[in-house]
Amino acid sequence: MNSEEEVAEFVKNGHRQYLPHVTIDPVIFGYHNQQLRILLLKWKGQNGWGLPGGFIQRREPLSQAAHRILQERTGLGNLFLQQFHVFGDSPYRLQERSAHEFRENYGIAVDDDNWLFERTLSIGYFALVDYSKVSVTTDFFTEDYQWQDVNDIPTLLFDHNEAVAKALTTLRLQIYHQPIGFNLLPEKFTLPEMHTLYETILGKVLDQRNFAKKLVSLGLITKLAEQRAIGPHRSPYLYQFNKETYEEALKQGIVHTY
Amino acid sequence: MNSEEEVAEFVKNGHRQYLPHVTIDPVIFGYHNQQLRILLLKWKGQNGWGLPGGFIQRREPLSQAAHRILQERTGLGNLFLQQFHVFGDSPYRLQERSAHEFRENYGIAVDDDNWLFERTLSIGYFALVDYSKVSVTTDFFTEDYQWQDVNDIPTLLFDHNEAVAKALTTLRLQIYHQPIGFNLLPEKFTLPEMHTLYETILGKVLDQRNFAKKLVSLGLITKLAEQRAIGPHRSPYLYQFNKETYEEALKQGIVHTY
Repeated sequence: MNSEEEVAEFVKNGHRQYLPHVTIDPVIFGYHNQQLRILLLKWKGQNGWGLPGGFIQRREPLSQAAHRILQERTGLGNLFLQQFHVFGDSPYRLQERSAHEFRENYGIAVDDDNWLFERTLSIGYFALVDYSKVSVTTDFFTEDYQWQDVNDIPTLLFDHNEAVAKALTTLRLQIYHQPIGFNLLPEKFTLPEMHTLYETILGKVLDQRNFAKKLVSLGLITKLAEQRAIGPHRSPYLYQFNKETYEEALKQGIVHTY
Repeated sequence: MNSEEEVAEFVKNGHRQYLPHVTIDPVIFGYHNQQLRILLLKWKGQNGWGLPGGFIQRREPLSQAAHRILQERTGLGNLFLQQFHVFGDSPYRLQERSAHEFRENYGIAVDDDNWLFERTLSIGYFALVDYSKVSVTTDFFTEDYQWQDVNDIPTLLFDHNEAVAKALTTLRLQIYHQPIGFNLLPEKFTLPEMHTLYETILGKVLDQRNFAKKLVSLGLITKLAEQRAIGPHRSPYLYQFNKETYEEALKQGIVHTY
């Protein structure tokens, strides 16, 4: 949504196309070079940064809406996307928005009882991407973006700090029973690559030998006959995820920890 | 909601009091005497059983709504209640309801475009109760209830089999990092009582010695100096949950498995 005409139409008639009262606000984790970051947008007229967001179309399956909102923002389809929580408790989630503020921020004429200002519940999804491969799109409502390190998140707009914290907790709890590495490592990877990914996401040091041994013994990753030459005398073996073992473990309710 | 007048008012003006498009449909697990069951209701005019459900008031915090709906149905307050998933993908979750069917089932005059027939997303919560202590309330829309064994769930109304399956998976995944036993065991309990609770919820046999040893060594339960006399030569030691250790483990993203 970029032109003022498109936005005016969305404001006026969006409730015919979208469900009111509910938004999807994705926390998009980006991993690259041993850094874990999240995508933040600078919302126009707001003094600060927040998460991306969007509405669900009236006849659209919920998870399809989440994928669409992510694709519109990042250009990426077919991502690992995980619903993690619905936010509806904080004071921000109980109140109506200010029509006055909206007119000030965006210069668009709108009635006080417009559908956009009603209370919304926020359905949180998180995604994992390689942020070096993403080209982020801003629009009429947003004027800038940044990939911010998870260890250095500023005070965000709305209740978005709560959403980021909950997403990170869930990501860390699920790291051993969701195929989180699939999006972030090459198809064939070395043990140090895998080890670094897990350490970065968990934000703590893991014993390198035990970590690898356990992943292999559980059958979650498989050692290949191939090696990668990365220097003289350095050609570590390559490994591959074993997707079926992951899925079987999850189905049986087994959580692996290290 | 019991009288026809109350229901007629709810149908006509409920959208002023409640958010449309969103319901809360709790899966209420009941544990007693080594059985794990769920609460099912017989919805009037529907040929089958389904979960309880309710709407969120326009100014009501989400989790407060979940507690209220549970309390209205079971009479129990202050329960362990865990949000687990929003359902919005299945064909049932995309379609509008039939006004004709509603008139047939409940004998109440209603327009085709009444708010009750719009598509709804369902926010799933699960609770854990001792079902021997619950007195279930039926109302105008429901004519009977039962506590059904989780191993013998029939085909349910709407998309409720999906909700039950997902709730059970989540309960089992979280059994070691949520204070699940608090509601279901006496404050002081024996190891066999704890062991049986976990085996029943997980639906599988756990090694009795390793299970107890690990819980104690992790500090999740604490051995007391007290014993319970249950027969001649039988007076097992009593144990207590260590709530702080649980909470600290969860905060640090540590999941304990056995």
